[in-house]
Amino acid sequence: MEMKLPGQEGFEASSAPRNIPSGELDSNPDPGTGPSPDGPSDTESKELGVPKDPLLFIQLNELLGWPQALEWRETGRWVLFEEKLEVAAGRWSAPHVPTLALPSLQKLRSLLAEGLVLLDCPAQSLLELVGSTHPRKASDNEEAPLREQCQNPLRQKLPPGAEAGTVLAGELGFLAQPLGAFVRLRNPVVLGSLTEVSLPSRFFCLLLGPCMLGKGYHEMGRAAAVLLSDPQFQWSVRRASNLHDLLAALDAFLEEVTVLPPGRWDPTARIPPPKCLPSQHKRLPSQQREIRGPAVPRLTSAEDRHRHGPHAHSPELQRTGRKVPWYPSDFLDALHLQCFSAVLYIYLATVTNAITFGGLLGDATDGAQGVLESFLGTAVAGAAFCLMAGQPLTILSSTGPVLVFERLLFSFSRDYSLDYLPFRLWVGIWVATFCLVLVATEASVLVRYFTRFTEEGFCALISLIFIYDAVGKMLNLTHTYPIQKPGSSAYGCLCQYPGPGGNESQWIRTRPKDRDDIVSMCVKTSRFFPSVVRKGLSDFSSVLAILLGCGLDAFLGLATPKLMVPREFKPTLPGRGWLVSPFGANPWWWSVAAALPALLLSILIFMDQQITAVILNRMEYRLQKGAGFHLDLFCVAVLMLLTSALGLPWYVSATVISLAHMDSLRRESRACAPGERPNFLGIREQRLTGLVVFILTGASIFLAPVLKFIPMPVLYGIFLYMGVAALSSIQFTNRVKLLLMPAKHQPDLLLLRHVPLTRVHLFTAIQLACLGLLWIIKSTPAAIIFPLMLLGLVGVRKALERVFSPQELLWLDELMPEEERSIPEKGLEPEHSFSGSDSEDSELMYQPKAPEINISVN
Amino acid sequence: MEMKLPGQEGFEASSAPRNIPSGELDSNPDPGTGPSPDGPSDTESKELGVPKDPLLFIQLNELLGWPQALEWRETGRWVLFEEKLEVAAGRWSAPHVPTLALPSLQKLRSLLAEGLVLLDCPAQSLLELVGSTHPRKASDNEEAPLREQCQNPLRQKLPPGAEAGTVLAGELGFLAQPLGAFVRLRNPVVLGSLTEVSLPSRFFCLLLGPCMLGKGYHEMGRAAAVLLSDPQFQWSVRRASNLHDLLAALDAFLEEVTVLPPGRWDPTARIPPPKCLPSQHKRLPSQQREIRGPAVPRLTSAEDRHRHGPHAHSPELQRTGRKVPWYPSDFLDALHLQCFSAVLYIYLATVTNAITFGGLLGDATDGAQGVLESFLGTAVAGAAFCLMAGQPLTILSSTGPVLVFERLLFSFSRDYSLDYLPFRLWVGIWVATFCLVLVATEASVLVRYFTRFTEEGFCALISLIFIYDAVGKMLNLTHTYPIQKPGSSAYGCLCQYPGPGGNESQWIRTRPKDRDDIVSMCVKTSRFFPSVVRKGLSDFSSVLAILLGCGLDAFLGLATPKLMVPREFKPTLPGRGWLVSPFGANPWWWSVAAALPALLLSILIFMDQQITAVILNRMEYRLQKGAGFHLDLFCVAVLMLLTSALGLPWYVSATVISLAHMDSLRRESRACAPGERPNFLGIREQRLTGLVVFILTGASIFLAPVLKFIPMPVLYGIFLYMGVAALSSIQFTNRVKLLLMPAKHQPDLLLLRHVPLTRVHLFTAIQLACLGLLWIIKSTPAAIIFPLMLLGLVGVRKALERVFSPQELLWLDELMPEEERSIPEKGLEPEHSFSGSDSEDSELMYQPKAPEINISVN
Repeated sequence: MEMKLPGQEGFEASSAPRNIPSGELDSNPDPGTGPSPDGPSDTESKELGVPKDPLLFIQLNELLGWPQALEWRETGRWVLFEEKLEVAAGRWSAPHVPTLALPSLQKLRSLLAEGLVLLDCPAQSLLELVGSTHPRKASDNEEAPLREQCQNPLRQKLPPGAEAGTVLAGELGFLAQPLGAFVRLRNPVVLGSLTEVSLPSRFFCLLLGPCMLGKGYHEMGRAAAVLLSDPQFQWSVRRASNLHDLLAALDAFLEEVTVLPPGRWDPTARIPPPKCLPSQHKRLPSQQREIRGPAVPRLTSAEDRHRHGPHAHSPELQRTGRKVPWYPSDFLDALHLQCFSAVLYIYLATVTNAITFGGLLGDATDGAQGVLESFLGTAVAGAAFCLMAGQPLTILSSTGPVLVFERLLFSFSRDYSLDYLPFRLWVGIWVATFCLVLVATEASVLVRYFTRFTEEGFCALISLIFIYDAVGKMLNLTHTYPIQKPGSSAYGCLCQYPGPGGNESQWIRTRPKDRDDIVSMCVKTSRFFPSVVRKGLSDFSSVLAILLGCGLDAFLGLATPKLMVPREFKPTLPGRGWLVSPFGANPWWWSVAAALPALLLSILIFMDQQITAVILNRMEYRLQKGAGFHLDLFCVAVLMLLTSALGLPWYVSATVISLAHMDSLRRESRACAPGERPNFLGIREQRLTGLVVFILTGASIFLAPVLKFIPMPVLYGIFLYMGVAALSSIQFTNRVKLLLMPAKHQPDLLLLRHVPLTRVHLFTAIQLACLGLLWIIKSTPAAIIFPLMLLGLVGVRKALERVFSPQELLWLDELMPEEERSIPEKGLEPEHSFSGSDSEDSELMYQPKAPEINISVN
Repeated sequence: MEMKLPGQEGFEASSAPRNIPSGELDSNPDPGTGPSPDGPSDTESKELGVPKDPLLFIQLNELLGWPQALEWRETGRWVLFEEKLEVAAGRWSAPHVPTLALPSLQKLRSLLAEGLVLLDCPAQSLLELVGSTHPRKASDNEEAPLREQCQNPLRQKLPPGAEAGTVLAGELGFLAQPLGAFVRLRNPVVLGSLTEVSLPSRFFCLLLGPCMLGKGYHEMGRAAAVLLSDPQFQWSVRRASNLHDLLAALDAFLEEVTVLPPGRWDPTARIPPPKCLPSQHKRLPSQQREIRGPAVPRLTSAEDRHRHGPHAHSPELQRTGRKVPWYPSDFLDALHLQCFSAVLYIYLATVTNAITFGGLLGDATDGAQGVLESFLGTAVAGAAFCLMAGQPLTILSSTGPVLVFERLLFSFSRDYSLDYLPFRLWVGIWVATFCLVLVATEASVLVRYFTRFTEEGFCALISLIFIYDAVGKMLNLTHTYPIQKPGSSAYGCLCQYPGPGGNESQWIRTRPKDRDDIVSMCVKTSRFFPSVVRKGLSDFSSVLAILLGCGLDAFLGLATPKLMVPREFKPTLPGRGWLVSPFGANPWWWSVAAALPALLLSILIFMDQQITAVILNRMEYRLQKGAGFHLDLFCVAVLMLLTSALGLPWYVSATVISLAHMDSLRRESRACAPGERPNFLGIREQRLTGLVVFILTGASIFLAPVLKFIPMPVLYGIFLYMGVAALSSIQFTNRVKLLLMPAKHQPDLLLLRHVPLTRVHLFTAIQLACLGLLWIIKSTPAAIIFPLMLLGLVGVRKALERVFSPQELLWLDELMPEEERSIPEKGLEPEHSFSGSDSEDSELMYQPKAPEINISVN
């Protein structure tokens, strides 16, 4: 599945321009999350009593063919971006950022200054004006164009209430001098086929004159259209009362344009619409700004931008669950078609997860657990969590870190010849107890001390274990299923009996499987598929890899080791019932000693669960029903008890799959201008999709007979892929790459603009050293204490405050709570007062600091 | 090896800005190829008696820290692009296109208009002026900065004669009103540590004033610096005689700036330097333009841009070889270090080619030829060609199409139970005869009728055959080396003796090999490596794939089928001597009948050789020693005789490897501004590198004992890769993709701006139909006549003139000679006079029409 960084959507959502009414966003309980910085939302403007100006569609009609065959022709259109008619190809260009030549703007200004300006003109007088200069209007057959108007796909995209502005430009040889006119109608009227889509026309700009060299009128017309498409100019010109106001608005526009010097930039290059537009808020005129409240202080916005770590969005951390009032709506809100596709998508992901982790868990615990347990546990725990939890969109999973710990726990219990499942039951009981203590003491606020430094260490270690394990398993297979040397048996007679324990033929090679997954990994970056196919492939790449691997395995008839699946609905381990006996063959005091590993596991589960919860409850997702950090941890603790008692895998919230769930439930604005990205409105928060997913997962237990065709190497391949993908998506990896790169070839990261390279390298080196140390500990018999070591990272990070300035840590990591409090007094970024470099950092280039997504590596 | 489209370099080279003297380009025999459109070359300006203005390095020094700690600090620098000091990180930013706010330019203008302008000022009076405002100059220790100046890497980059311009800007609270001054020194002086690099300073711009809100002086200073970095402004201001001239130059600059509207573009985004800059020629002021000759008419430049097909650069086609005068320099010019690395690179590529094609040839002809013949033939034919040919940079290879034909010829001869090598000898004799006739009749001009339509058909068919063959071979191996079904032998005793002919064990699977190559193909697009490593990997990907494949094969001890290499230096086919007997076991009349296949092969060789030759002699490579189309074909004919007589592979020029050879011998300007791409000066045309490569290849025959470790599946993998790479790089493939893409998601291709989509699809459909027909013919017993069918494509293309307008064909294909002649009268692109869309096509977006590179698919 695709790993999407949560910061990105947030940015797109919060900085998308606001001039399209977002009708769906009616209630917003948290005033801090609602208004985007670039303008008030609908709600806010309604509250303030300021009616929102309608959207303006601008069209450029050119008079062509002087003198023989005069014809008006639409050659360009604008909502936010420019679309140009490709005359020869007969199609509209892709939307692009309009570029103008400065002289055309200046010529337009002087033409308007000397021309006719009619403001609040009644429609009748305009018709007299336009009628004479628009020969097509009278002569053409009006029927066909009108039908075309209604079928125009643009019409559906534009929101209700949109108005039109028309620029009419061209050469009329008989005119002695250029004529400019600007008209604003008092009441907009629909003017037949004048505009491409049947909208009431509000503005007209007429630019006609004698024949001129080059494309003077075309460029002037474009300038007028671009001007009219500027929200700021629209605001002013709707309120202008005379020529002076109009020219002032034009001058205000000129004040704000960006200038590219000639010869350094090809002026004919079409710039694709940027992913995110600059804030419009500071562009509002002073009187408008006053009505709508003071501008957000820069510090706040900078803080918001810099901190996408888990503690950045923590209003929820104080709040305790008040979920009951929402409960009915948690089911009613699911009545939407989108939820069906979400269920299908998440179901597939969940089943893949259950197979992969279940298979590996069975492998790691010699069948003490297996795929059947994984399915059953996922269904029971997941469904229960969906019904009880504070954040019902969360999908539970037996994630990577827990799997790593379980592997260690198993080898520990084997070393001491323990009966694993009863021992594990006591670990579970203790973990549940510790977690309940953590809930009672509201310890979740401690999560603020896990900065990116800790998270990246966590993620990198787990990823490396994944990679190491996967490669190790595959190499192991090569030994278990040995390869025939051709020399030794070339002319001999090869007789081999499989060993008594195995039921697979021994001379079958298993190498090919691991390749499939590398290939499926490459699919994502291949350029041989159109992007739609690629997106689909990458969303379902694990499913595809499994299917492909199984297919190849079956086609070639390879006898690879397969998933162990019991034939009936009974536990994978032969001879045990569903309920784990509390002591088994273990001495009683092991139930007390289990508290020690349980403490370690509690740390792991606490870190994993809470960091994931903070990520899922980020502000940019605009969740309206609130979170429930303590409630969720409570649920995890209870489920811990249940799954331990039944010998099922342990479950915590899974970051990536939960984010995918939320992403598949996005509500977005429909009406949007060409080239603009859809507006993010929120998420369909409900419990039904999750519930259905887990019911389906439970039903899939009957798939078990099919599952035994899945070769283990395929699962190792997915495991390897997960490790590599997680490792390559954290900033730490990028900084390691920087170590190897000459300064000249380094990418233009914001980080590098603000922190000296040697300091960046020092930070990376410290992280590498910590990772090395963790790896060494992991390889010793003390491996089981690795959760404690992860916690040790917090201490190292605290010590780093003595080495690095808060400034540097802000860029390299995030700030810890104490540092954060000290920052507003000290001044956030001292160097800005010096050279003001921050204001030159493009928001477009901002790289969200959100690698925490990979913590659960699944 | 990397497939580089030849058109691209040409564009970079021809449109790079010219203000850096290209000292190395001293002789240019062909006035048509020399001067780039954006300004005269050194030679030309010398001829015209216009001394070239020196390069200007501009530096912005800001006065910071008012009022407590006044300090001058360099905060920006410009040659072509802007580099900004990242104060906090203490490093220079990457070069980027400067963007300005319009008001800062306007404020600068008014400040200069009221300020002090000293033109041709003696240095002494400046020192008085600057001394007082530059406190650091007097107080600082001058030693350290001066040493720094000399070590500055920028100094080495800037060409000799470069001058400096310094902008000094900042706040001085005691000033009552802003002060602007512009100084041009009569004779530039080196002013100690004022500039970062010790250059004589020519211009000074001083902008000081009372404290101002925001970053007014910084922005004004940047505006002044950007202005000074504009070549056009430099030209004017060097010749300005008063304030009026200065302001006029500034206004001329303003006239040409590109304006981006606010709110549609983030003004703080740093735009990376574009790959190619817009032409500067039309920006020259009229008096300058007159001196340097009239502007190139637009039609010519459009023609040049549209036609990168083989017939577009055909002055060489008329020229016959006059190579003798160059002969001594052909060896002396090789005395350069670059030639050593070129030899190594091309040697590796040639050996890989010899192994791959030799191995496949051996495979296709049941060992009638093999790797030993391939090495020997490559060495002999290649070296002979290098010594004799008109274009000594050409690397010969037994290329794809010839291999395809040879395979058909072999199966034909087997069908008639012919003795293959003697029959092949007669085919060779006839081909040589036909080629000599073609030389005598100067038939090379016919190559003009092979438009892109033909070439793409040719390329697509050969690529598909490659892919089909490679996949077929691999599937075949699965049958030849059967896979053990686990069920059939699970508890049995498996006894297998290898057949009497083979010496390989039969129970060894060969599947894994083919994966390696897919993996190595993915390396190119992977983002896990820094670009340098990636470039290296992709250049040597075939070598790496072979090594990796062999290593894995040896490591796992797989008994895959290996390259057949004779143990001694004797022909691969057992029992034959080096000289092929003229008749063998064949009846005598087959020597006459061989003329028929020879005719077909002649067509193939003529097409392949001549199209390649035209590509290699393109204008953009700026070859100075001329080509020799007829001489080269003559050489190929003679070598045909030789190789047929010895039973060696047949050779023609190889496009990709020859282009790689030329590319590795590029001469480029050293001194270049940050962010600017190096200037292409020409190619080291000499015979020595090629000769050494082939001598080394000959010596590599003694590598034969090593070669027998190469598994055949690895070679099939490379073959498959070549096919896929060639297929995916032609425009035809992109158009096929367009067929499957909704219009909205299609890329913004220039083609689509000018031709209606239905017409594009029609053209693609016709091409697909032709390809299908060719494939069907290829699959029938008549397969051997496929060269004739390829020629039939020319007829189809001619017929297309009745379906498509010349306009459309110009975009979809190229024009045939007759159409080309008719175009200037008709007017090249009628729609331009209508909406002028051509002028809005960005040169940056221009997609060179040069897929012909793949014709030889090797």
